[in-house]
Amino acid sequence: MKILVTGAGGFIGATLVALLRQRAQAGGRRISSLAVLDRQLGETAPEMVRIEGNLQDAQVQAQIVAFGADLCFHLAALPGGAAEADPALSRRVNLDATLDLFELLARRDPATPPPVVVYASTIAVYGLDLPDPVTPATPTRPALIYGAHKLACEILLADYTRRGLLDGRSLRLPGIVARPRAASGLVSAFMSELLHALAAGEPFTCPVGPQATAWWMSAQRCAENLHHAASMDPSLDPEGAAARVWPLPVLRLSIAQVVATLSAMQGVDAQALVRYAPQPQVEAVFGRYPRLDDRAARQLGLRDDGSVQEMVERALMSRV
Amino acid sequence: MKILVTGAGGFIGATLVALLRQRAQAGGRRISSLAVLDRQLGETAPEMVRIEGNLQDAQVQAQIVAFGADLCFHLAALPGGAAEADPALSRRVNLDATLDLFELLARRDPATPPPVVVYASTIAVYGLDLPDPVTPATPTRPALIYGAHKLACEILLADYTRRGLLDGRSLRLPGIVARPRAASGLVSAFMSELLHALAAGEPFTCPVGPQATAWWMSAQRCAENLHHAASMDPSLDPEGAAARVWPLPVLRLSIAQVVATLSAMQGVDAQALVRYAPQPQVEAVFGRYPRLDDRAARQLGLRDDGSVQEMVERALMSRV
Repeated sequence: MKILVTGAGGFIGATLVALLRQRAQAGGRRISSLAVLDRQLGETAPEMVRIEGNLQDAQVQAQIVAFGADLCFHLAALPGGAAEADPALSRRVNLDATLDLFELLARRDPATPPPVVVYASTIAVYGLDLPDPVTPATPTRPALIYGAHKLACEILLADYTRRGLLDGRSLRLPGIVARPRAASGLVSAFMSELLHALAAGEPFTCPVGPQATAWWMSAQRCAENLHHAASMDPSLDPEGAAARVWPLPVLRLSIAQVVATLSAMQGVDAQALVRYAPQPQVEAVFGRYPRLDDRAARQLGLRDDGSVQEMVERALMSRV
Repeated sequence: MKILVTGAGGFIGATLVALLRQRAQAGGRRISSLAVLDRQLGETAPEMVRIEGNLQDAQVQAQIVAFGADLCFHLAALPGGAAEADPALSRRVNLDATLDLFELLARRDPATPPPVVVYASTIAVYGLDLPDPVTPATPTRPALIYGAHKLACEILLADYTRRGLLDGRSLRLPGIVARPRAASGLVSAFMSELLHALAAGEPFTCPVGPQATAWWMSAQRCAENLHHAASMDPSLDPEGAAARVWPLPVLRLSIAQVVATLSAMQGVDAQALVRYAPQPQVEAVFGRYPRLDDRAARQLGLRDDGSVQEMVERALMSRV
């Protein structure tokens, strides 16, 4: 099994690569056929194949074809805030390069099974003013170009699947915590920053109010879900089998719930540290997530973090 | 008002251009600012601007920018059957070139209102095994790459609209009759061929059974709807205002209904002429259209042909 991870140097990518190696070692195997791809790669284990550069570089594309992945986790993306600031770059990275990758992966001996593609899509495909609950029938109305490009790629991955060229599985990722404390270009980064600040006993100004509700998942559980998606059986969800799209099951939590749990766990005085300064625009996008009907995804074995405590523990454990 | 029509040399494009000129003349105006674009253009009225070539040619793109359209009808496309046979060409024409066009149209003085774009999408975005009725909440599951690319462009035109760069209106066109009797690359061409054959008193072998139901519209009514879409007020449909997508209202007719009306109108013996040889694949795609909840589109002033008689009359009138 040859595995390719794009965006392997990123926050979720690094967590997934660590998980893949851990699982292989637990099975007594070395991963000799794991390729990691990113614009820039840090140090990697010697047995890994390194593909460094942009997805649209001819040399990178040649390396992808030469590697011949049986399974690809496609995580490389220009995040939401950065995409909104540069729509042309979003088109190149989030649409064109992704479709190029699908095409390269599909170029295989037709006698072999189609490569499995686990695609990191996003809950940004849903848009604003969501109904309660969000269900598989909820219309997708992205309110960010990032969500629009991801949605287009979901549709085209389903078309590759229909044509028998790829075996696609799109997962709609919620805000994943706790991202490193650097500018990530993601508007949802404040969710991670909240965890870091309180864990460090530092003050934090929250751009949404205490009752703002969001969908939460730790990077560790996200990586486990991506890994599971590669081997799950889409036919267990007959309704979703054609679209090949599932939202990850999430914990729907208010900021107040996260703050209460976190401050109790860390023994800090949240009242003294957290100041609320709701910004209407941020709250409109990240503060009004309703319930999510994720039964189909659960049916396939995808999971949330279990509890707010576990989510916070895993999130802080995975700090880079 | 500067108007650009892409695919102007095609079946629907030619009907639309004729309608635009007719309406201008009825208003005592000459259309001095109508640009017609196609890969190859026949003779055109001297006052029209001709843009001949592929949408992705640099020279064609420069002409589009120089023209500076206030309104664009985007009809140019690689049809369903041809797209399925050449997915890479479908990507270039139905996705890349369309997004390039949107980008070129959006490059305007920000002080002027965003150009209106009427985009000819397709009922192929819905896919197979449709619920009865199809509603605005029906999930889109294209079963042809043509439908997948058109759906992606609907989403991205809505995003240009959200960003205030274009004023998009996507219309999902049903099978339009009666196309000229030449290979069009459209799988639905048999619907037109049926009309031509019976009108000419010629035998016809029908690839779907008499009870097969499809959505029908004449080219003339289709052109009227495209024209109307340019000036209609999307805010009259608050539900659809963000997505900016409407199916055209249609007549849902069985083949038997069309055959009966047509043979009575033309005085031919349909029983002697029409032989049914249903092909399961054609019937699955074009023979099982359920009812369509098109109330939102009607609310905006879009219309069907009124009756099967009127549809047939207009369809045969518009024969090229």
